[in-house]
Amino acid sequence: MIENTPLVRKLGAFVALSDPELSVLASLHKRRRTFVAGRDLVHQGQSYQAAYILASGWACSYKLLEDGQRQIVDFQIPGDFLGLRSVLLHVSDHSIEPVSDIEVTEIHVADLLDAFAQTPRLATAVLWAASRDEAMVVEHLVDVGRRDAAERMAHFLLELGARLALVGLGNKDGYACPLTQYHLADALGLSAVHVNRVLRQLREAGMITFRDGFVAFDDYDQLVKFAQFDPSYMDHKGPILR
Amino acid sequence: MIENTPLVRKLGAFVALSDPELSVLASLHKRRRTFVAGRDLVHQGQSYQAAYILASGWACSYKLLEDGQRQIVDFQIPGDFLGLRSVLLHVSDHSIEPVSDIEVTEIHVADLLDAFAQTPRLATAVLWAASRDEAMVVEHLVDVGRRDAAERMAHFLLELGARLALVGLGNKDGYACPLTQYHLADALGLSAVHVNRVLRQLREAGMITFRDGFVAFDDYDQLVKFAQFDPSYMDHKGPILR
Repeated sequence: MIENTPLVRKLGAFVALSDPELSVLASLHKRRRTFVAGRDLVHQGQSYQAAYILASGWACSYKLLEDGQRQIVDFQIPGDFLGLRSVLLHVSDHSIEPVSDIEVTEIHVADLLDAFAQTPRLATAVLWAASRDEAMVVEHLVDVGRRDAAERMAHFLLELGARLALVGLGNKDGYACPLTQYHLADALGLSAVHVNRVLRQLREAGMITFRDGFVAFDDYDQLVKFAQFDPSYMDHKGPILR
Repeated sequence: MIENTPLVRKLGAFVALSDPELSVLASLHKRRRTFVAGRDLVHQGQSYQAAYILASGWACSYKLLEDGQRQIVDFQIPGDFLGLRSVLLHVSDHSIEPVSDIEVTEIHVADLLDAFAQTPRLATAVLWAASRDEAMVVEHLVDVGRRDAAERMAHFLLELGARLALVGLGNKDGYACPLTQYHLADALGLSAVHVNRVLRQLREAGMITFRDGFVAFDDYDQLVKFAQFDPSYMDHKGPILR
């Protein structure tokens, strides 16, 4: 019996995976490991790192500059790969830190490449997941480069909501969210004080409330309009490959 | 006889491709097409788009916001895929415009997926190319989010130089570059006036001169230090898979 894990749900959005393909996917999951919040799993510049699939909890990938500034590239939620990109590069171009305590399963690169040989459709599904991850980083570039502070916050929280909904962890009412204002600041290129001000502004406008670890969409449609949020880049319309 | 195209040189940096693998790669190249500068090949929101391999000339991928602002995500040079990411998504999340007149070869998604089935190592090489592309978008996010205008310009021009060197189109002296100040402005989140000022500042500091379609590294080592340019994210150290 194959578990309906967040990863299976996520890849299933792109490729309708057969039972043999699901078995190959399940065989990738090796050692189950846990990591505590705030301690890096992967360090920028590290070689021979492992890749992981996140089973529960949240993580973030980030880059540190020599002067100590930090840019958070993305957050990872259950079903996401951690370090998939770096596994193919000689050294990791970023660090990964658990936002909350997390459970992961380790995957070995050699196993992944073998799996591609056995089931090329799985390779396509993984390439899709990588494409979607990149599409999100592109949106974050647009966030930081071209959207004002309130729009970028609204866009970012909507994107997280759509990703969480795909793996059954959120809906149009909202979602549980372990992020602090410091995480949001480092992701959006704002100061923590500015984050606080922007969140108040969005709450007072009746669109969204982020309080006690929960993001509540008070007026989802208005928020979508305000953020010019077009979720098509998330590509959640159902499998292209059947 | 298999041509030593820019794409072969580039993928060869990651996977030592065998002759049969090179044949499969060559068979992907279908129709040769040309596009003139400034006319989009791919439109944001388009479905059923083709993917291309750039044979000569430069292109750029960008997103337009509803208010008309433009964020250039990346530039593509010979050997790069155009629209690979969007081919796997239902609709393209960005537009692609030729910067100069370009020559491309069209590839069909179905052929690409077949090729993965025949030669899984090729799938890995393409996944590597996608990983490297994403690593570059991540750097652009850091550029815009955390580097000041002069550092981000220096970092960006160094990155282009390293990419061009990999496909034999540049070296530590510099490279031919068809970009205008408007392209640089839209890529780096600056105004054209600001771009002009920053380029003058870098030239007067004796580090780099961008004039008459040529970027000259006047003092490569000093520029690398100034930009904190660590090229390891470009992953040009030679094949991991042999």
